[in-house]
Amino acid sequence: MGTTDGARRVGRPRAAGRSDSGLEPRAELLLAAAELFTTLGYAATSTRALAERAGMRQASMYHYVSGKEELLAELLESTVTPSLAYARALLAEDARPAERRLWELCRADVELLCGGPDNLGALYLLPEVRSERFAGFHAVRAELRDAYRKLLAATDAGGVLAKGELELRTDLVFGLIEGVILVRRSGPERPVRVFAEATADAALRIAGG
Amino acid sequence: MGTTDGARRVGRPRAAGRSDSGLEPRAELLLAAAELFTTLGYAATSTRALAERAGMRQASMYHYVSGKEELLAELLESTVTPSLAYARALLAEDARPAERRLWELCRADVELLCGGPDNLGALYLLPEVRSERFAGFHAVRAELRDAYRKLLAATDAGGVLAKGELELRTDLVFGLIEGVILVRRSGPERPVRVFAEATADAALRIAGG
Repeated sequence: MGTTDGARRVGRPRAAGRSDSGLEPRAELLLAAAELFTTLGYAATSTRALAERAGMRQASMYHYVSGKEELLAELLESTVTPSLAYARALLAEDARPAERRLWELCRADVELLCGGPDNLGALYLLPEVRSERFAGFHAVRAELRDAYRKLLAATDAGGVLAKGELELRTDLVFGLIEGVILVRRSGPERPVRVFAEATADAALRIAGG
Repeated sequence: MGTTDGARRVGRPRAAGRSDSGLEPRAELLLAAAELFTTLGYAATSTRALAERAGMRQASMYHYVSGKEELLAELLESTVTPSLAYARALLAEDARPAERRLWELCRADVELLCGGPDNLGALYLLPEVRSERFAGFHAVRAELRDAYRKLLAATDAGGVLAKGELELRTDLVFGLIEGVILVRRSGPERPVRVFAEATADAALRIAGG
């Protein structure tokens, strides 16, 4: 956050907080929300605290977002949308065997879930996230799980599984990947790449026999 | 909650809610807390709502518990203490190979995490749980993870791992087991035993090669 935005926009009122990051106001709000929702809690974070942390007045915040829910929805989606895009590319590819492509998806997904300063996956378990307002996130996450299922079905071991078995194994692989959210919360600090590759190896073992 | 406690105790003031369960007041409060913390959220649950759901007046609640935190701590510990006791018994046993005992621990742990009407594991990720007041829970959970590590180290495959590798593999197995919290949240309904055994099989695959 050390960069200074010399040409500060006129008409964008600011108070205290991250005022010199050079980010767009919406990006500042997302950054503030990521930090406050994961450290203070979603319910406990006021829009006032959000605006302050993002360096603007509460009233100005509503120029950029409709409220807390919109920020939460966008943060949640940011944890699945890149992986879904990558999964689609991997599904469309047929140069490499499905085992290798599944491994790649697992690795990339773990890197996404463990990347960034805040453990955004922890927000999945908020009771609020069950609501209809987060249908977009749930749809993307369901599509991502479905991509895992398709890649798994394309592997040698997955191709011979009955439907129920394939669903179960998909949940185990997907559960291992999302389980890194819990490991990250309490586990030791490790280079993300090492952890992501080890998790992908483990996923292949679950997938593969 | 259909049982009626005919001999309602005198001197235990009640309002509305689960007033005819026949449970002790503290147990009623724990049941109410499990439900409200997982559906409404911890921060969003007032002590008043808790007391009402448990069928007592707010003032009476403080005869039985010091407040919300005590209830949360007890709920969290209930998700790890039985597994730790079982893990200790399994560690002390040497009739069966370590692989089999590790499988048993995984199965039992998943049954615990997926048993009961509420997904209490979802409370692990609350920001509040980082506080010192939950040191008891963290200590039991760390001991449980350590028991996983010891059982893993006693397996043929685990016995040859370097320390860092053993820690990593322990996190992967432990992450798979705790990952069922996320699967349970969004996955299809399945018989717990089937899911627990499949997860234990998957854990052994991660452990074992």
